[in-house]
Amino acid sequence: MRYLIKFSYDGTNFSGYQKQPKERTVEGEFEKALYNINNHTETRIYSSGRTDRGVHALGQTAHFDLEVDITLYKLKCALNSLLPDDIHVISTEIVDKNFHARYNAVEKTYIYKINVGEYSPIFRNYIYQYNKPLDIKRMNDALNSFLGEHDFKAFVSEEAVKSNYVRKITKSSITASDNIIEISFTGNGFMKYQVRNMVGVLIKIGSGKLPVGIIEEIFNDYEKRKFITTAKSEGLYLSEVKY
Amino acid sequence: MRYLIKFSYDGTNFSGYQKQPKERTVEGEFEKALYNINNHTETRIYSSGRTDRGVHALGQTAHFDLEVDITLYKLKCALNSLLPDDIHVISTEIVDKNFHARYNAVEKTYIYKINVGEYSPIFRNYIYQYNKPLDIKRMNDALNSFLGEHDFKAFVSEEAVKSNYVRKITKSSITASDNIIEISFTGNGFMKYQVRNMVGVLIKIGSGKLPVGIIEEIFNDYEKRKFITTAKSEGLYLSEVKY
Repeated sequence: MRYLIKFSYDGTNFSGYQKQPKERTVEGEFEKALYNINNHTETRIYSSGRTDRGVHALGQTAHFDLEVDITLYKLKCALNSLLPDDIHVISTEIVDKNFHARYNAVEKTYIYKINVGEYSPIFRNYIYQYNKPLDIKRMNDALNSFLGEHDFKAFVSEEAVKSNYVRKITKSSITASDNIIEISFTGNGFMKYQVRNMVGVLIKIGSGKLPVGIIEEIFNDYEKRKFITTAKSEGLYLSEVKY
Repeated sequence: MRYLIKFSYDGTNFSGYQKQPKERTVEGEFEKALYNINNHTETRIYSSGRTDRGVHALGQTAHFDLEVDITLYKLKCALNSLLPDDIHVISTEIVDKNFHARYNAVEKTYIYKINVGEYSPIFRNYIYQYNKPLDIKRMNDALNSFLGEHDFKAFVSEEAVKSNYVRKITKSSITASDNIIEISFTGNGFMKYQVRNMVGVLIKIGSGKLPVGIIEEIFNDYEKRKFITTAKSEGLYLSEVKY
């Protein structure tokens, strides 16, 4: 039977999502737990996509196949009892045997949090500590340039070689409350460092270091990617995956 | 010169506030930093009061004496550069040589945060993960019983032997938003475990395990302290100290 799960994690103490030998990873912890649940059988888990070291998830998804017969509620409990405190399974469901958590995903939402007030030791791993004012109006004006379909190659890590960098951003928003700026992007897919590079440019626009029009310029001239600074991982959350 | 500082810390990785041999404590970290700032002289720091292991602070205060001449801004920078990431000095000021951070405090505010929704791996060390519904109306009705002057002996750790357990609570509130309940108490002083025991009783009232009137009963009959469960440390924040 194929199962789809929704889960959250605190990325702070993981070497990213993807399994790596000798490193503590979210995927590695899941495969250890699934080995126990699935009658001591190696069980692979397929997520909607990896997240980088330090990035958090509020609603990551993944699928896997189990040979054992287990109710959805018991599966949730078994996973949560075997997984460490910094991963939590929110829900479990049965899906078609052809369902794939990555390929069937139609929309993802990422959130990025920035503290523009005093440094917070309590949120240092959960909100990017920028600790200086940002002009949210300028950032909001710039944000619109990301909307719609674009070739995002200039915003993607050079390590990530793709045949096609065209993605569509369907929604974006920026809100501020109590010195915390929250930027959200919804789209049909995001590539390595894409959100952190989009946020990095917005921060430079908000600080006055780059003009509002720079995003259009980068889309039109790949060389202008040199103006991009990748925003730090700790402010980023994979918020939701839709099927 | 005597200095008063306001600071915040993440209590997660400290063995409490108070210095102890071989343990990582907030006080210990401050005294290491002050030793460097104060010309390699042992420098004691006097806080408004200790906090227990796992308890956080948004606005703790402390005073100390320095022999060196340093501006307030440089003192803030020097402390923040020498202190670890999980402590942050918010402000520095000069006070009278007779000022005492503990004895001159007239009012303190504590906040306690409870998650009544799904377990959050991200906030596991910053919000108590109760993860079940609570009747906030019952808790709010009960809260009033704490207001005013009372002998809080039944709500204080038996380890804390005092000559006088009478304290005054001047303000209290309970709010709920997005499955997070926040309880706040302001008063002229709080003793060991007092807030955590007050919150512990409120949680039992909210869950229906204890009647709303139990607080009055405990005030009137010390033996009824047996109904109290101490709420966990990670939900508690020392929010503000007033002089």
